[in-house]
Amino acid sequence: MTQTKIFGHQNPDTDTITSAIVTADIEQQLGNDAAPYRLGEIGAETEHALNHFGVKAPELLESLEDGAEVILVDHNEFQQSARNIEKANILKVYDHHRIANFQTEAPLFYRAEPVGCTATILKKVYEENDLLISKEMAGLMLSAIISDTLLFKSPTTTEADRTAAQALAEMADVDPESYGTEMLKAGASTKDKSADALITADAKSFEMGQRTTRIAQINVVDVDEVFDRRDELENAINHQIEQEGYDLFVLVVTDILNSNSRILALGTEAQSVEKAFDVALDENSAILEGVVSRKKQVVPQITKALS
Amino acid sequence: MTQTKIFGHQNPDTDTITSAIVTADIEQQLGNDAAPYRLGEIGAETEHALNHFGVKAPELLESLEDGAEVILVDHNEFQQSARNIEKANILKVYDHHRIANFQTEAPLFYRAEPVGCTATILKKVYEENDLLISKEMAGLMLSAIISDTLLFKSPTTTEADRTAAQALAEMADVDPESYGTEMLKAGASTKDKSADALITADAKSFEMGQRTTRIAQINVVDVDEVFDRRDELENAINHQIEQEGYDLFVLVVTDILNSNSRILALGTEAQSVEKAFDVALDENSAILEGVVSRKKQVVPQITKALS
Repeated sequence: MTQTKIFGHQNPDTDTITSAIVTADIEQQLGNDAAPYRLGEIGAETEHALNHFGVKAPELLESLEDGAEVILVDHNEFQQSARNIEKANILKVYDHHRIANFQTEAPLFYRAEPVGCTATILKKVYEENDLLISKEMAGLMLSAIISDTLLFKSPTTTEADRTAAQALAEMADVDPESYGTEMLKAGASTKDKSADALITADAKSFEMGQRTTRIAQINVVDVDEVFDRRDELENAINHQIEQEGYDLFVLVVTDILNSNSRILALGTEAQSVEKAFDVALDENSAILEGVVSRKKQVVPQITKALS
Repeated sequence: MTQTKIFGHQNPDTDTITSAIVTADIEQQLGNDAAPYRLGEIGAETEHALNHFGVKAPELLESLEDGAEVILVDHNEFQQSARNIEKANILKVYDHHRIANFQTEAPLFYRAEPVGCTATILKKVYEENDLLISKEMAGLMLSAIISDTLLFKSPTTTEADRTAAQALAEMADVDPESYGTEMLKAGASTKDKSADALITADAKSFEMGQRTTRIAQINVVDVDEVFDRRDELENAINHQIEQEGYDLFVLVVTDILNSNSRILALGTEAQSVEKAFDVALDENSAILEGVVSRKKQVVPQITKALS
């Protein structure tokens, strides 16, 4: 039996890493040979969660051979996935994003729901299949929900996320508020990170009409700490635009305590964010009141403005 | 509250029509305003099933306004769907096909499984949500499974389809074998149908690499009855190739009693079927032993030969 490789998106965040681990646990309980992988370095927030619950990080996926059997979690768009994904045999997908730039040659198992976090769907899968949720897996799923919903403050948060998190917190034996704040803060420091690391750590590419847009997000507790390094960041972004041919690069700096974001927009299509958010850019930057969710409050708005 | 429109693919077959009706029943039980629609004329087989269980046919979908809320069943590829589908707001999809030429701007509910029939998935949805399956809905789901699996003879048939059908047959109070044979025969006569009707009734388009392939399937009990009209059929097919610009048109005439198919392949890429099935075309035709499933035994093979 060949081993099924399970992985989330590039620039992995907490939901992507933990969902790969949790899905591997589900597959193993179902009697399938499967292992979790990661497509990039693990961030401080995710490391905090893994350490807290004593779970090892997945191995780095070095390459994907033609016809490899894979399960995708927390993403589906090929440009966010592993290299050579278009030649893999995608058996299953668990996701909570829009579907785009995704196709298969054969029928598959696809489970997506418009909820705040992949882990919320995975908890259902455990239950529907009468599988056991260990304390460790409960803790990882809780961490993913807290991370993706910014402790239930993001507008992507659904009732299903809240209910799942509450049950998982009991199973994991932690207080969601105090554990969650501690975990988010662990990932929120930007001082020890290079400009390149900041614009790369949680960045995704999107095909929008004929344009390629790159949207990076940083969750912080001090927005000024980032914008004090504006020149350095603009240089790093412009370098990436040149290297990768992005038409638009938006850096979204999200204040996780006050639930706002300040953006930095560069590229030939930078003006489109003015239309998207009905704001005026000042030195390529604008404050977006109440915006914390890339998926719900940034991607659809820019997609619309560009099409 | 706006009404959600639920529909399957163009050239509707029994699974597509009944899945729209059944999904509307599920949505209504969940408290949502939803109604089933159809994208084309209903065939004799489907009519037999609807009459047997005393259920009305859905209304024809005349047009789809921008932003209309819809649920797709039994398909996802836009070229098989309603006109203007790319501007609709797709809330949910229930399907058992590959995913291709499908995308959304927002996250959605997507439920696909590699089973023989959409109805097999819908039965699970009833159960997961603790909803009531009426005798009528059970009968329609059973009819869909029998139709898509050709009474469990198609290689697309899974254990889940068999188990679901058995339970549904009990709920619907019919013998699956005798009811199924009667239903399939009701749809298998070709004598009273025009050549154009035969090549259109269950035809689907597929983008394969740079080529557009049209694959039509007819289920019959007498293959010769169809090939006695070869000239008439070739004229009709060549006319469609010219009108629609297909690179390849394959008519698959399936013998539902002996589980074989004879094909007729026309278009500039007609030779590709020789490679796809390792057969030699004789007067544009070949017999494919054991082939009954377009999805599993025809589409992947031609896709591969063309790419």
